[in-house]
Amino acid sequence: MTFRNRVQQIIETKNSLLCVGLDSVIENMPKHIQASENPLWEFNKAIIDATLPYAAAFKVNLAFYEAYGRLGWNALEKTFNYMPNDVLAIADAKRGDIGNTARMYARAVFEQLDADAVTVNPYLGKDSADPFLQDESKGLVFLCLTSNPGSQDFQYFSDGQTTLYEHIARTVYSWNHQKNCGLVVGATHPDELKRVRNLCPDLPFLIPGIGAQGGDLQASVVNGTDASGSLALFNSSRAILYARQDERFETAAAHVARETRQQLNEARNLAGPS
Amino acid sequence: MTFRNRVQQIIETKNSLLCVGLDSVIENMPKHIQASENPLWEFNKAIIDATLPYAAAFKVNLAFYEAYGRLGWNALEKTFNYMPNDVLAIADAKRGDIGNTARMYARAVFEQLDADAVTVNPYLGKDSADPFLQDESKGLVFLCLTSNPGSQDFQYFSDGQTTLYEHIARTVYSWNHQKNCGLVVGATHPDELKRVRNLCPDLPFLIPGIGAQGGDLQASVVNGTDASGSLALFNSSRAILYARQDERFETAAAHVARETRQQLNEARNLAGPS
Repeated sequence: MTFRNRVQQIIETKNSLLCVGLDSVIENMPKHIQASENPLWEFNKAIIDATLPYAAAFKVNLAFYEAYGRLGWNALEKTFNYMPNDVLAIADAKRGDIGNTARMYARAVFEQLDADAVTVNPYLGKDSADPFLQDESKGLVFLCLTSNPGSQDFQYFSDGQTTLYEHIARTVYSWNHQKNCGLVVGATHPDELKRVRNLCPDLPFLIPGIGAQGGDLQASVVNGTDASGSLALFNSSRAILYARQDERFETAAAHVARETRQQLNEARNLAGPS
Repeated sequence: MTFRNRVQQIIETKNSLLCVGLDSVIENMPKHIQASENPLWEFNKAIIDATLPYAAAFKVNLAFYEAYGRLGWNALEKTFNYMPNDVLAIADAKRGDIGNTARMYARAVFEQLDADAVTVNPYLGKDSADPFLQDESKGLVFLCLTSNPGSQDFQYFSDGQTTLYEHIARTVYSWNHQKNCGLVVGATHPDELKRVRNLCPDLPFLIPGIGAQGGDLQASVVNGTDASGSLALFNSSRAILYARQDERFETAAAHVARETRQQLNEARNLAGPS
């Protein structure tokens, strides 16, 4: 099955557009988890158990694990191993390197970690993406327009007719022979989200920025989903992970995940026929 | 001491513009190293010992270690620990993410690994670089124009007056308040190297592509060094690491490193007063 069809199927089966971002920071965890042997792993296991009924995907941000060296890699491997088959496991790595190095990164995320998809930085061009593009079942989600203030610095650079982020969207679309490409477009740019959706009507989008970053959830769902109200995953990390920072964090995380899924589904119904 | 001054000082002390790239691939190592407990580490230790007299820097490409999970991270930590103070230890990570994640990557490379510099992808803009920019002694080397064929896909995108890679060079130069920024410009583009050097006369450049990738060594040295024939590090990986793939690999690696240093120094003398 192609990555695109898998995204569509999981969104339908779980009736959810929610992606839970495992940007796990030890200092923000409940004290009893902080005191455990591998807090990153113990916390992730608890959050996955608590939010699984509401999540279509989990996005694991590799930086938060690399910061802890081998302990972090151990938690990464355990977290990816633990994910059930009915959710997408996304390695948020934002990698991008020349051909022979890209092959190594592909091995790291698809073989060592067995992720279903990886985020990739497109700056190095086609040959940096090729080693990832071979397997139709593995998704390659390219940074297009990011949710942070620095997105203004280079991503809007324009040739007078088209901006860099649009040029990237069009180019990635031309690489999508295996139906396994996707794009990252931030919820903090709802108008641009509509432009990119028009350029790439059937690519899966990963849309960060609806939680702590304050993106417009409703406009992002209306503009970011495809014609059938699908093919978009909305990431929330901090708002779910640290909903409570005491013994009752799991119940609180489940509650926020459930609410967020509902808000997304309500906005999805506004977006049109589903 | 600022990163820029450190680069200058090490190039002078070691009389070398050579950076040895530790893109270590187990399958390419001599059989007796492949049979050891942690081949990545055993190989790196041997290559560092053999080439240290000729190298101003070692560049460790993180992808080649991440591909081996925890074993790889163990080799990474040992390799960075082992580097003496009279060479630069560069983490070739090509990272780039939004603010809170960038802080985690900075922690991974500067605290877990104690690298002197890290390569960074500029696509996410200023706030993705900020957490790295704080410490004047730690270098932040931004991708500008890469050595691979895919550099044509986005890096030459132009507003009619300036290309994206030139725009990035100018912008990074404006971020260089702590004198700790640098740029990656491939030796496969000697003319563009000259343009970027003109835009950024006193930034350190990391220049890949002189070895197996076939970049023009002499033109790159003439065009890439600063007015005093310094501030440029030329990376060679495969040509040195796998000069021989049997028991005599250390002698062969040392030989190629010494020759490459000499070729670089000869070209440097052509470039003008030093």
